[in-house]
Amino acid sequence: MTYCVGLKLDRGLVLMSDTRTNAGVDNISTFRKMHCWEVPGERVIMMMTAGNLATTQAVVSLLEERAKAPEDRAPSILRAPSMFQVARLVAQTLRETISVHDSGGQEADSAFNATIILAGQIADGAMRLFLVYPEGNFIEASEDTPYFQIGETKYGRPILVRAYEPGMSFEAAVKLLMVSFDSTIKANLSVGLPLDLQIYEEGSLALGHRQRFEPRDPYYRTISDGWGEALKMAFDSLPDPAL
Amino acid sequence: MTYCVGLKLDRGLVLMSDTRTNAGVDNISTFRKMHCWEVPGERVIMMMTAGNLATTQAVVSLLEERAKAPEDRAPSILRAPSMFQVARLVAQTLRETISVHDSGGQEADSAFNATIILAGQIADGAMRLFLVYPEGNFIEASEDTPYFQIGETKYGRPILVRAYEPGMSFEAAVKLLMVSFDSTIKANLSVGLPLDLQIYEEGSLALGHRQRFEPRDPYYRTISDGWGEALKMAFDSLPDPAL
Repeated sequence: MTYCVGLKLDRGLVLMSDTRTNAGVDNISTFRKMHCWEVPGERVIMMMTAGNLATTQAVVSLLEERAKAPEDRAPSILRAPSMFQVARLVAQTLRETISVHDSGGQEADSAFNATIILAGQIADGAMRLFLVYPEGNFIEASEDTPYFQIGETKYGRPILVRAYEPGMSFEAAVKLLMVSFDSTIKANLSVGLPLDLQIYEEGSLALGHRQRFEPRDPYYRTISDGWGEALKMAFDSLPDPAL
Repeated sequence: MTYCVGLKLDRGLVLMSDTRTNAGVDNISTFRKMHCWEVPGERVIMMMTAGNLATTQAVVSLLEERAKAPEDRAPSILRAPSMFQVARLVAQTLRETISVHDSGGQEADSAFNATIILAGQIADGAMRLFLVYPEGNFIEASEDTPYFQIGETKYGRPILVRAYEPGMSFEAAVKLLMVSFDSTIKANLSVGLPLDLQIYEEGSLALGHRQRFEPRDPYYRTISDGWGEALKMAFDSLPDPAL
């Protein structure tokens, strides 16, 4: 499993992903699920992946190769004129990869499906946040739903629903993601540290602050320990029922 | 879907269930999912069901019929000598019901599966809490895992994990369940009010406080509105990261 969240704020984008992959509970590895491309001053493209690791790695490799070989006839996400066109390329690559694995050859127990959160900004276009489905179509975050989650989304959703605000600072957004990830990690063994963070400031057209939170990261520990206490205080502040 | 939780406290048992059933999102009904049997001074048996409604209703009806017809050759949960034997009867009835529907006759798209939380106390036996699986086996709550959830369990789990304490009062336990249900209801349309509450005080051998919380119940509204505020205060009390 996996847990990734992309938040669209007024001032930019904040993305966080875990790094645990598993084939059963007895085969656990660490893989980066966040991938970024940057042409400073021109474009920033960020991607987080959930699902079959072979599929998501193939998609990333294909996008990488095409970006590095300008003579390739396949269009590159580094040349697409808009984030919408980037989303189309990513979605098409994802769909192709799945269909190649799905048709013919060895059959696998689990599906080759994958889901992708895609975010970024190109030149004077708007900053955008997409969710790409394995079927090769995608949706875009809007004012009503300004964030996307993929993977094990349920445990960490209530705090997102309650505490997200489009006007929040990057610091508050990172804190919010920490709490959401901590709730998920505490409940589901298949989501685990380290966590990757990537911030993008609207209009900067350059990757912003990037950080990896290791299991012993002091801020992660502060949030993980402090949230339990804070939750209990919040709980105690509510009135008891009259039974 | 469904959401039911059974808590085992030092002083007794607290059970809460929602009442929404759905076949698709366009076919929603309200059904009671909590069923109690009582022989005052001798035994109390409480059950909550999740899963296929036809299956769970058939199980409850079978248990009811056998309890009311002492001449029936099938043993009755009102005569079983211990909660363990009651759990065996319930599990067997559940398994039989599923297998009858599963074999032969019309086929259905969805499975006939169901899961049951069973709790109670008989005479001088211990107060016990079981989780019965559709396969006809069951597990019992222990000190390490003193509560069971069935149905849509994920959204409401983080607060249970953080705030449950075996020594808590019935009032605090009801408040905890309210928060857990509210988080679930806010996230999943297939879980809905009214909510049924049943309390059992250890050793009383009689059903305790019972209550139905309707959508406009003032205490439910207090918790639902207050929890958002309390969560945000808890969230604000944590330190921001240094980015």
